[in-house]
Amino acid sequence: MKSIEELQLLISEKIDGFCKENGEQTIYQPINYILSLGGKRVRPALCLMSANLFSDEIDDALYPAIAIEVFHNFSLMHDDIMDKAPIRRGLPTVHQKWNENVAILSGDAMLIQSYQLLMKTRPDVLPEIMRVFNQVALEVCEGQQMDMDFEKRQNVSVLEYEDMIRLKTSVLLAGALKIGAIIGGADANSQEELFEFGIQLGLSFQLWDDYLDVFGDEKLIGKQQGGDILSDKKTFLLLRSLELAGIEDRGIIENYTHNITPSPAIKVAEMTALYRKL
Amino acid sequence: MKSIEELQLLISEKIDGFCKENGEQTIYQPINYILSLGGKRVRPALCLMSANLFSDEIDDALYPAIAIEVFHNFSLMHDDIMDKAPIRRGLPTVHQKWNENVAILSGDAMLIQSYQLLMKTRPDVLPEIMRVFNQVALEVCEGQQMDMDFEKRQNVSVLEYEDMIRLKTSVLLAGALKIGAIIGGADANSQEELFEFGIQLGLSFQLWDDYLDVFGDEKLIGKQQGGDILSDKKTFLLLRSLELAGIEDRGIIENYTHNITPSPAIKVAEMTALYRKL
Repeated sequence: MKSIEELQLLISEKIDGFCKENGEQTIYQPINYILSLGGKRVRPALCLMSANLFSDEIDDALYPAIAIEVFHNFSLMHDDIMDKAPIRRGLPTVHQKWNENVAILSGDAMLIQSYQLLMKTRPDVLPEIMRVFNQVALEVCEGQQMDMDFEKRQNVSVLEYEDMIRLKTSVLLAGALKIGAIIGGADANSQEELFEFGIQLGLSFQLWDDYLDVFGDEKLIGKQQGGDILSDKKTFLLLRSLELAGIEDRGIIENYTHNITPSPAIKVAEMTALYRKL
Repeated sequence: MKSIEELQLLISEKIDGFCKENGEQTIYQPINYILSLGGKRVRPALCLMSANLFSDEIDDALYPAIAIEVFHNFSLMHDDIMDKAPIRRGLPTVHQKWNENVAILSGDAMLIQSYQLLMKTRPDVLPEIMRVFNQVALEVCEGQQMDMDFEKRQNVSVLEYEDMIRLKTSVLLAGALKIGAIIGGADANSQEELFEFGIQLGLSFQLWDDYLDVFGDEKLIGKQQGGDILSDKKTFLLLRSLELAGIEDRGIIENYTHNITPSPAIKVAEMTALYRKL
């Protein structure tokens, strides 16, 4: 088995190579920009680790692993437009640094490029990994749609929330593991077990992300602190607080989420205090 | 050879079937909406005609043909956001009827679905048609980027314009023909000749589109008349007029394209008169 450090090095090299091959045109600058912001690159690492579980030879999984990372960054680029997020990994988001049209179009190009990368593998596994990739990619979009729908709704249950993040976050991690397993030569049962592991991993990943948005250090997380509170995002913290709150606290939360608030700073401070209490 | 009417019927049935299989979620409604607007469906017809040139059996080309039409409609959905177009085929555009976020996300889903459709063919041709599809798809995005870049520039030559529409319009027609040819079993030479034919076809197609935008009947073309004039789009008509204009006419055109204009209606009327004259 290769160490995570070895895998991360392989991933970095491939991503750098991919960026260098991109043309000089305007459309490729935001792609190279968002990929240069780094991030943990968890998804390609999971894909390679999964392939490595079943085979010492992981070269055929390298480009599909990068495809998943490029896809993930495409979805971040478009989600940031929709969520009006100003900061990503401590730097301006693409639609902020350029404009919305650039972010739409460069994101589209990235999605196409993820397919170009995906097909750089053995032809015998191509139809199968494409099927997984397509399904997962579509579910990520469905998850983002549910997330936006929830912002307009008053009553969202914790169960519905879990269903949304299964689509929006978990399936891509699960898909990365399954695609790695397929390329590594795993049997169908092992493929499914790794997929299920990815689903659970994604769930914990998102709960931790919700937590960091409120309680994390802005410098460390590289995002605006309390961003979810300001956009009235139905996070686990909000939904669970609404379940636990008495009449008085519930009233306060509902006032804030109806945007009756003196200032953004006060809204974040008061909601954070309520989350701590509940 | 099947007649165009027979091919169009096959295409309609497949697109209707595709729409029926789409889920109930919000994200699929704009997809079914834009596909229900119809349009000429030239691209899938070209793909099938091309396959039919080399083989009586065209079933394997049917889904890839639909994939190209779905891709084309994805690009329309996103281009309409970027161009702020209010009307498409006589009805409100998706970002107008729903909102921009919905149009971004449903477009993304359509792009993924085009790959789902593309892979419903013989596995032996899949890598080759994916290579063509990916390259063409990326070039369509590059063309849209050039088009947007041109809006900000003062000096665009007719040659640069032709290069832009080769990317934005021609390559997808050319790709449709080439993918059909590959599936039909054409040799490499015939594939390339059909591709080149598609490039020339696209060029004439776009010049005619530019012409209709100004001189077409709004009811027949299903778009706002003079929309290109209002958005200062560098069309063939504008660029060629600038080449042909004397000092006085050039001054008038430049005033209008710098948005020094009393009203949109007057701008369209005056520019149309100049185009007629030149």
